[in-house]
Amino acid sequence: MISYLTLKSRERSELIDITARVEELISAAGMRSGCCDVFVLHTTAGITVNEGADPAVKRDIASCLDRLVPNNAHYFTHSEGNAAAHVKASLIGPSQRLLVDRGKLLLGTWQALYFCEFDGPRERRVAIRICADG
Amino acid sequence: MISYLTLKSRERSELIDITARVEELISAAGMRSGCCDVFVLHTTAGITVNEGADPAVKRDIASCLDRLVPNNAHYFTHSEGNAAAHVKASLIGPSQRLLVDRGKLLLGTWQALYFCEFDGPRERRVAIRICADG
Amino acid sequence: MISYLTLKSRERSELIDITARVEELISAAGMRSGCCDVFVLHTTAGITVNEGADPAVKRDIASCLDRLVPNNAHYFTHSEGNAAAHVKASLIGPSQRLLVDRGKLLLGTWQALYFCEFDGPRERRVAIRICADG
Repeated sequence: MISYLTLKSRERSELIDITARVEELISAAGMRSGCCDVFVLHTTAGITVNEGADPAVKRDIASCLDRLVPNNAHYFTHSEGNAAAHVKASLIGPSQRLLVDRGKLLLGTWQALYFCEFDGPRERRVAIRICADG
Repeated sequence: MISYLTLKSRERSELIDITARVEELISAAGMRSGCCDVFVLHTTAGITVNEGADPAVKRDIASCLDRLVPNNAHYFTHSEGNAAAHVKASLIGPSQRLLVDRGKLLLGTWQALYFCEFDGPRERRVAIRICADG
Repeated sequence: MISYLTLKSRERSELIDITARVEELISAAGMRSGCCDVFVLHTTAGITVNEGADPAVKRDIASCLDRLVPNNAHYFTHSEGNAAAHVKASLIGPSQRLLVDRGKLLLGTWQALYFCEFDGPRERRVAIRICADG
């Protein structure tokens, strides 16, 4: 079963916690165990898992990526001016595969699921496929 | 069902669009919906998803990785001289999980599936597993 | 079926080969073909696939990441002092999806599965889900 989430980013580079929205889909489907694939339908955004408790962590990830891959680096040739966002998207990756156990995402104590915006602000779409065991 | 693609890279660092070849496998299997795992069987190559329209994007990704991880950086110790290619392989990752909907890969408008060569030119192999729903 | 591995890291940054331990789980389950998801339950560690033969490769990956994302870079704001480890975790990613064929992980000749410690030494947990075909 494939569902879609629509998101609005507000910054150029930003991590947005989507854990609760994905767990709502799992809960609405009545799924107890299985797996869940989260896939971004864009080429300047990604999906990651990282700390959900201290918001400094998501800011530090975005700002470290900004330093590793500077906007408008002199060697970029893509004419739209967002080559850096494309590179970041491939460094983070377009998808995550998560496990579902007892009706919830199987995550460590501090883990949260993040949509990573690298070329916002924009409206974005994420595809979610859940697949129950048995 | 596991199939294999054989690819020939022509450059040291190069992204090769394999979307059409993977969709041929899906189509040949008569698969309508499900998922598709694409896995590189090498340690100096990866798989990513990024823009397929403007070829400048794939060049920019390869050249940004070349700058982040320079060939023959003084601190590398691997004696084969291709340590940079191994690091890039782990930054991009060896595999992607894709969704299949209505007989095609579920991709955003600009997305394409890329094999990423980091130590070419060579002949390479990619394993593809498709798994139909129901 | 979800199983858990417990690991002890001994260094701050370290790649630990877990191929044999995951293959023991596959073998114990009597599984011949299917897939295997490996997911880290922490936010300062990751999972990758890279060369298992020359130990210089895993050291080079860890030391290149140390250079790309320096500990205590001046712009980090996370108060626990391990922001670099969080960034590395997202660059490498928290999980890998592997294929199983003839009772073993489908890996290229030189590939091994690695747990990547970025904030050790610690005790860590990894979730493994195996899913047989048919």
